[in-house]
Amino acid sequence: MTDIKPLLKRLYEINKEIMLYAGIYNLLDWDRAVLMPKMGSLHRADQLSLMMTSIHERMTSKELNDIIQTLSKKENFDKLTELQKALVKRHEWKLSRLNKIPKEHVEEFSKLAGIATMKWEEAKDKNDFAMFLPYLEKIVAMKKKEASYIDPERHPYDVLLEDYERGMTIEKLDKVFAELKKEIMIILNKVKSSKHYNNEKTLDGLKFSEQEQKQTCMEIASMILGTDERFLIARSVHPFMTTISPDDFRITTSFRSEPFFSFSSTAHESGHALYESQYPKELAGTILFDAPSLGLHESQSRIWENQVCRSMQFWKYYYKKYQKRFDALKNISLKDFFKMINVVKPSLIRIEADELTYCMHIIIRFEIEKQMIEGTINIKDLPKIWNSKYKQYLGIEPKSDALGVLQDVHWSQGSIGYFPTYALGTMYSAMIFNQMLKDNPKLESEIAKGDFIYMRSWLKEHIHKYGASMATAEIIKKAIGRELEHKDLIDYFRKKYYMIYKL
Amino acid sequence: MTDIKPLLKRLYEINKEIMLYAGIYNLLDWDRAVLMPKMGSLHRADQLSLMMTSIHERMTSKELNDIIQTLSKKENFDKLTELQKALVKRHEWKLSRLNKIPKEHVEEFSKLAGIATMKWEEAKDKNDFAMFLPYLEKIVAMKKKEASYIDPERHPYDVLLEDYERGMTIEKLDKVFAELKKEIMIILNKVKSSKHYNNEKTLDGLKFSEQEQKQTCMEIASMILGTDERFLIARSVHPFMTTISPDDFRITTSFRSEPFFSFSSTAHESGHALYESQYPKELAGTILFDAPSLGLHESQSRIWENQVCRSMQFWKYYYKKYQKRFDALKNISLKDFFKMINVVKPSLIRIEADELTYCMHIIIRFEIEKQMIEGTINIKDLPKIWNSKYKQYLGIEPKSDALGVLQDVHWSQGSIGYFPTYALGTMYSAMIFNQMLKDNPKLESEIAKGDFIYMRSWLKEHIHKYGASMATAEIIKKAIGRELEHKDLIDYFRKKYYMIYKL
Repeated sequence: MTDIKPLLKRLYEINKEIMLYAGIYNLLDWDRAVLMPKMGSLHRADQLSLMMTSIHERMTSKELNDIIQTLSKKENFDKLTELQKALVKRHEWKLSRLNKIPKEHVEEFSKLAGIATMKWEEAKDKNDFAMFLPYLEKIVAMKKKEASYIDPERHPYDVLLEDYERGMTIEKLDKVFAELKKEIMIILNKVKSSKHYNNEKTLDGLKFSEQEQKQTCMEIASMILGTDERFLIARSVHPFMTTISPDDFRITTSFRSEPFFSFSSTAHESGHALYESQYPKELAGTILFDAPSLGLHESQSRIWENQVCRSMQFWKYYYKKYQKRFDALKNISLKDFFKMINVVKPSLIRIEADELTYCMHIIIRFEIEKQMIEGTINIKDLPKIWNSKYKQYLGIEPKSDALGVLQDVHWSQGSIGYFPTYALGTMYSAMIFNQMLKDNPKLESEIAKGDFIYMRSWLKEHIHKYGASMATAEIIKKAIGRELEHKDLIDYFRKKYYMIYKL
Repeated sequence: MTDIKPLLKRLYEINKEIMLYAGIYNLLDWDRAVLMPKMGSLHRADQLSLMMTSIHERMTSKELNDIIQTLSKKENFDKLTELQKALVKRHEWKLSRLNKIPKEHVEEFSKLAGIATMKWEEAKDKNDFAMFLPYLEKIVAMKKKEASYIDPERHPYDVLLEDYERGMTIEKLDKVFAELKKEIMIILNKVKSSKHYNNEKTLDGLKFSEQEQKQTCMEIASMILGTDERFLIARSVHPFMTTISPDDFRITTSFRSEPFFSFSSTAHESGHALYESQYPKELAGTILFDAPSLGLHESQSRIWENQVCRSMQFWKYYYKKYQKRFDALKNISLKDFFKMINVVKPSLIRIEADELTYCMHIIIRFEIEKQMIEGTINIKDLPKIWNSKYKQYLGIEPKSDALGVLQDVHWSQGSIGYFPTYALGTMYSAMIFNQMLKDNPKLESEIAKGDFIYMRSWLKEHIHKYGASMATAEIIKKAIGRELEHKDLIDYFRKKYYMIYKL
């Protein structure tokens, strides 16, 4: 009989170290984006890589492999608590991927991605896809190889997808995205046929003082996060959220010419932060102190960014205060403001897309990357394919590759299978919000009073408290009683846009 | 014949990792002091300790021990470059200390220091020395034990001193501090006898706007550091300087009721930063990218804080600009301002001491800690001994232990032998400045024009360029042609204070 106690002790010790390293990695990365003198970037890359290697060494050590193998044996596994079982299973899954990729492949890919990201940046600056092409070809080839190392029997895109959205498959995505695409295009065409379309007033060009924008960012973060003191908001070029430790969560924001951007993105990042801050204490120091998938994580940001912060209820509560901060809003009514932050207008850049067309950007990327991995398109044709899809789905066409196929960093870093999580999160958020409305008919009137106590606690109880101890599909099923579907999001869009555009 | 190439390669690889860990440790610590949400402190302590352990493991690994042993053999050592020799010798010295202290002792002491520091803080808050006493007794006992592990033949205080000021001994300190004490007391008594004494106007109570203080901090840092872009100034409770990487140096400042504090301390920290930023590139990524001793490091901060930023020359250049920033200075002439920042007034708190009496605070601490280690005083009598020395040397007596023996954090952390480096740095700075004046008779007129190019380059050429590849005494001897002495500092004091107090 194996004494599992010392094994569990070591398992927790190793987990603690991994999570400390991960938090340190995140601080190095946060500091790089927020504060570091620019010249520090070369040494910082070495520091980040040292932390990454330290995590990888621990995640794949013989000691951990042996512990997990022993604890997975039925006679031992049966003795574990539910959380211990989940921890062992998550390690088993991670090992089943990490152990299969040769070290040389990992190292070669890491170097390639570094160079490819630089080349992508340069190609984007110079609007020259040809410059990026050979690197993207290598990236795709190596990602296919990686997938075949992990499981040569499965569709390589399914294997890659698992890194970001475990449990999701091409089959499911094809189905849900086809429906989503069809329905969004129907709504979009209706909106386009409205006499109000293209006549809406927008916020573009209005000037909001940065100091006041900062204040509203602080306010929305506090509304979402409550009285928690474990947060910090700073400024970076691209907004993001990161966790340094279970008592240290950081949000960044950025101020753009679009005057609503900082508010909206801070709501988004605060939603991510609320999720991580509500993981249960007993998961701290283990790899279960995490989300089961990026899609579920994204749902937690979208729900605050969209269902709350683009809703009439929220602005009934907050508009007076917000309006007072910005002279440019002096003569703009609540109703007009609400329309202005919900204008539909197909555009070229994903991160600037309106709420309705956002998912179309994702579907385009999904369709293209799937075919890249399947080898059914020639990568050198990407600009042509990209542009024709934009034309076909959104009725607009990029004038340059910088505004088209070169706009996102993801592929240059090897993140293939990442994009779908944005749309999945968007669909999950609509499903979750619907369920909350069912569970609490007063929710909308609470939001109209700026009262988010119920929302925070519902999300904690039904989503956050599991950390990564349960799969996304299970969590959704348990919380909502259904599986992923596009309907909630489409209903939400219909309701909102038919009202705004008087359809 | 040993092939030393692969050994050297590994030595540099290990050094690189050690320095990366050290930089990460410094970032974690900087962030803790500057930004971290307070609640993050427990996890941060774990992160810091993980980095510290990683450094310690590499510094004491069998692999490194073997490499150093092999490279130290005459037939191999002779083949090394001068820098490689210095690197091997520094490792040899570090190993000769680290290897001798049992791991259990290190761990026990680390825990004790953690608790003792908390207890010290509490005791200081409550003004209750008895609360701290048992911890200080344990600290002293364990430090004596540590010294006996390292070398039972040498005076334990000499052994401890080496951690901070390698090459320094009790014998030398006794001699130089006795002279320094005598001479300072002579000057102090003369100053006290001046009719101007105690009638001087001071800056106390003047209000300087924080925004403008920030600006002057930026200005003095830029003057000292030149056009370098590898710096960042932030704010923390206690000012400090730390190095994250050879391209990332951070200074912190703090705003106190004393309106000159932020300026003066920023000059001090910028001096430290200039030192580290002028270590030669070829030392980067090795443990020679460091100062040979804290005393020499301190000289590089003092020289800017005192010889430059409390001099008439400097203020001839800068006062007009500085005065404009602060309404409170409107009616204060350059001459009066110069006197105000050079007022002599014995006071109880070391970090608030004037330039003349500062070293007396150090000498008191040195005399006491030496006797603590020798066991010739009873630690429970510390408050009494402390107070009587303040009475005897400075003519003032603390009304509470919080303002007396409990004021500094050092002993609670086990830093015994650290205090003398402050006074050593102060003496070195006077010697170095004198030498610069000899080498460049125009130096003072350059300072009066805000031109620090010569100073920066002299310091680089004679002090900074060695990093830790040479001992402090050697560097001083080579730069100045003499050994440490108190005279330069005393001459500087005499010249300054006899003029100000019209003696």
